[in-house]
Amino acid sequence: MDFINIAKNAKQASLEIAGLSTEIKNEALIAIADAFEKYKQEIFEANKLDLNFAQALVQDGKLAKSIFNRLKLDENKMRDMIQGVRDIANLEEPVGKMLLTRELDKDLTLYKVSCPIGVLGIIFEARPDVISQISALSIKSSNAVILKGGKESVNTNKKIMEIINHALSQVEKFPQNVVQQVFTHEDIAQMLKCDEYINLIVPRGGNKLVQYIKENTKIPVLGHASGICHIFVDSCADIDMASKIVVDAKTQYPSACNAVETLLIHKDFQKSKELLASLQLEEIKLVSNPERWDFEYGDKILSYKFVDSIQDAIEHINTYGSGHTDCIVTENAENAELFMNNVDSSGVYWNASTRFADGFRYGFGAEVGISTNKTHARGPVGLEGLTIYKYKLIGNGQIVADYANGIKQFHHKDL
Amino acid sequence: MDFINIAKNAKQASLEIAGLSTEIKNEALIAIADAFEKYKQEIFEANKLDLNFAQALVQDGKLAKSIFNRLKLDENKMRDMIQGVRDIANLEEPVGKMLLTRELDKDLTLYKVSCPIGVLGIIFEARPDVISQISALSIKSSNAVILKGGKESVNTNKKIMEIINHALSQVEKFPQNVVQQVFTHEDIAQMLKCDEYINLIVPRGGNKLVQYIKENTKIPVLGHASGICHIFVDSCADIDMASKIVVDAKTQYPSACNAVETLLIHKDFQKSKELLASLQLEEIKLVSNPERWDFEYGDKILSYKFVDSIQDAIEHINTYGSGHTDCIVTENAENAELFMNNVDSSGVYWNASTRFADGFRYGFGAEVGISTNKTHARGPVGLEGLTIYKYKLIGNGQIVADYANGIKQFHHKDL
Repeated sequence: MDFINIAKNAKQASLEIAGLSTEIKNEALIAIADAFEKYKQEIFEANKLDLNFAQALVQDGKLAKSIFNRLKLDENKMRDMIQGVRDIANLEEPVGKMLLTRELDKDLTLYKVSCPIGVLGIIFEARPDVISQISALSIKSSNAVILKGGKESVNTNKKIMEIINHALSQVEKFPQNVVQQVFTHEDIAQMLKCDEYINLIVPRGGNKLVQYIKENTKIPVLGHASGICHIFVDSCADIDMASKIVVDAKTQYPSACNAVETLLIHKDFQKSKELLASLQLEEIKLVSNPERWDFEYGDKILSYKFVDSIQDAIEHINTYGSGHTDCIVTENAENAELFMNNVDSSGVYWNASTRFADGFRYGFGAEVGISTNKTHARGPVGLEGLTIYKYKLIGNGQIVADYANGIKQFHHKDL
Repeated sequence: MDFINIAKNAKQASLEIAGLSTEIKNEALIAIADAFEKYKQEIFEANKLDLNFAQALVQDGKLAKSIFNRLKLDENKMRDMIQGVRDIANLEEPVGKMLLTRELDKDLTLYKVSCPIGVLGIIFEARPDVISQISALSIKSSNAVILKGGKESVNTNKKIMEIINHALSQVEKFPQNVVQQVFTHEDIAQMLKCDEYINLIVPRGGNKLVQYIKENTKIPVLGHASGICHIFVDSCADIDMASKIVVDAKTQYPSACNAVETLLIHKDFQKSKELLASLQLEEIKLVSNPERWDFEYGDKILSYKFVDSIQDAIEHINTYGSGHTDCIVTENAENAELFMNNVDSSGVYWNASTRFADGFRYGFGAEVGISTNKTHARGPVGLEGLTIYKYKLIGNGQIVADYANGIKQFHHKDL
């Protein structure tokens, strides 16, 4: 099918799912989870096809081993994937929340109500479990979604999608075309141009993918291109705490976007040698003169620099950071406050590892992604980031002329 | 100065104003209002220069009389402009609001705090009072702003800006370059490309201007290109109410974006002839066969059509509407609910004129504009639309490894 027709169908589906009850949406999610249980062997078999193909590429040096690992669905990942869908069914209904109720005048009441965004376009790389997660999030938030996965996982993706749509077709009153999949690069190009029908693009993947998408669309993009996170060790930091936090932020999962890339140390911090030695003990490679301060290593490598003041640290972060997550280690509350107010990032931390920047750790139950945007949603984004709101105004024949002429007055009373 | 330097200065100013206290910001706003009082004769004189020039253009048929009228600052408009700045000083502080406080674990607390967006780019047409209003909104919300006004009001704009910046320079601790102005078409072109420094564009003007801006930038744009508002008169509508609402929505201010453009009438509505006759009595020109259903007349002209059902009305609106504001007139609560849930617009009204779609009427105190976006802010946008949030996480040395290894557990308790 032409992409434009897929997009039109998604738009139509988005209008139909917008008004769907919580019960039907949750029934759909449980049907999907049950179907995954029932047909998981088929998914494993499809995954095996992808893995065999990928294995050959790894051997030829044409595919990174890390991509191969992310591609692989084992029993554990399958269990998490299925539980993930059930968990999303159990989350609070994000649509129809009353955000404001205001009597503008007698019998003229304004309601601000959360509602879905419309049509989501999701572009992701190797991990096939993303399809399940994003489909579930879209259904829960009453959005239609068009997914484009990586070519490495095409068999797995097709099978998962087939199971999802079979399950959805069995749910009474559930609209068609809520979850659709596309496959080609040309589809991506069309998706990025399709601002008439697609309301939000969520890229899940590496820097290059996200950068390409941000450069090539006028549709709002929710995500982050890179995670250049910093830890600033203040003059009055506790050495043990500083070391523990930096080690965690760099080594607990070095390729994560919330891993630290740059360590800034106040020149008056007395134990800097001890700190650096403790990092080297953990096999962190220290770079004092990096080519670029805005480079994401994604590995156990850490740039570091001494700064003259907290202001210099803040300026360095606001200049070279990516607005993701930055931390100050200090015993001085005033400095912590200054840092958190003046660093312009989604997450500003005091005495805690940058690795906490995550929707699950924040208690959102599910994560759409992490955004470094300055509008709509910032930081780890849960279901709320897939909603917007509309205003309902209920009157009994009121007209503006009466207020313009002073016959009536607004009284703006929040209920 | 090159635009890029203006933008860099704005970025720097945005970081400095981000942490400014409510007291200093309000002092700045009052200083601006006082300066307008003191120097208003100078503003009138500058405005006279623009008016003389515009008058000649009107006589030559090169400028619409309506633009001339919007350009003109008289004592009334000046009073409103000054009062507008004082009103904004009195609004609730939009920055630093605690949107969520959640204990993730003992001594590890997450705070979601509202904060400014950063740098705003405002592009507006003839009305010179927009400078004062938007400058005040930007200051109140701790954003830096770059304004580009219409060439017709260049003398007035320059004088107002000179007075604003002189007033701001007298306020202790108020940063430089918070409010800047640019003048040329080339500046607009540069602004639209400047996504490194500018975080949000707000166009205030006609359809062509907004459309041009939306087509030519990757920066988020807050606004609406057109206002194709509908009123659907259901089969069981009250004739008097229907007539009163349509007349108000079409005639109270026909060129407003929230004026109605299309009337949809249920085929079973018994008093349709009476309704149409009552509209003609008010000198509304009725068009039963318009060339386009998505045309904004901005005049006392109204397209109308009979529809077979409420579903047809909803479909017509979702197809041809602009997602601005649409109304159902009905005595049937179920139909009203169906309409409000399924029409995908910023404002969905039941028995009230579409002209109520306005930040002041909604009680927001000030209005940035009306947005038909599906992300960030929708409908009439107050100060809240000029803010986003950041997450502050305060711990005492917590690391993620302890939670990943099961040594510690999150308890996610909202405080």
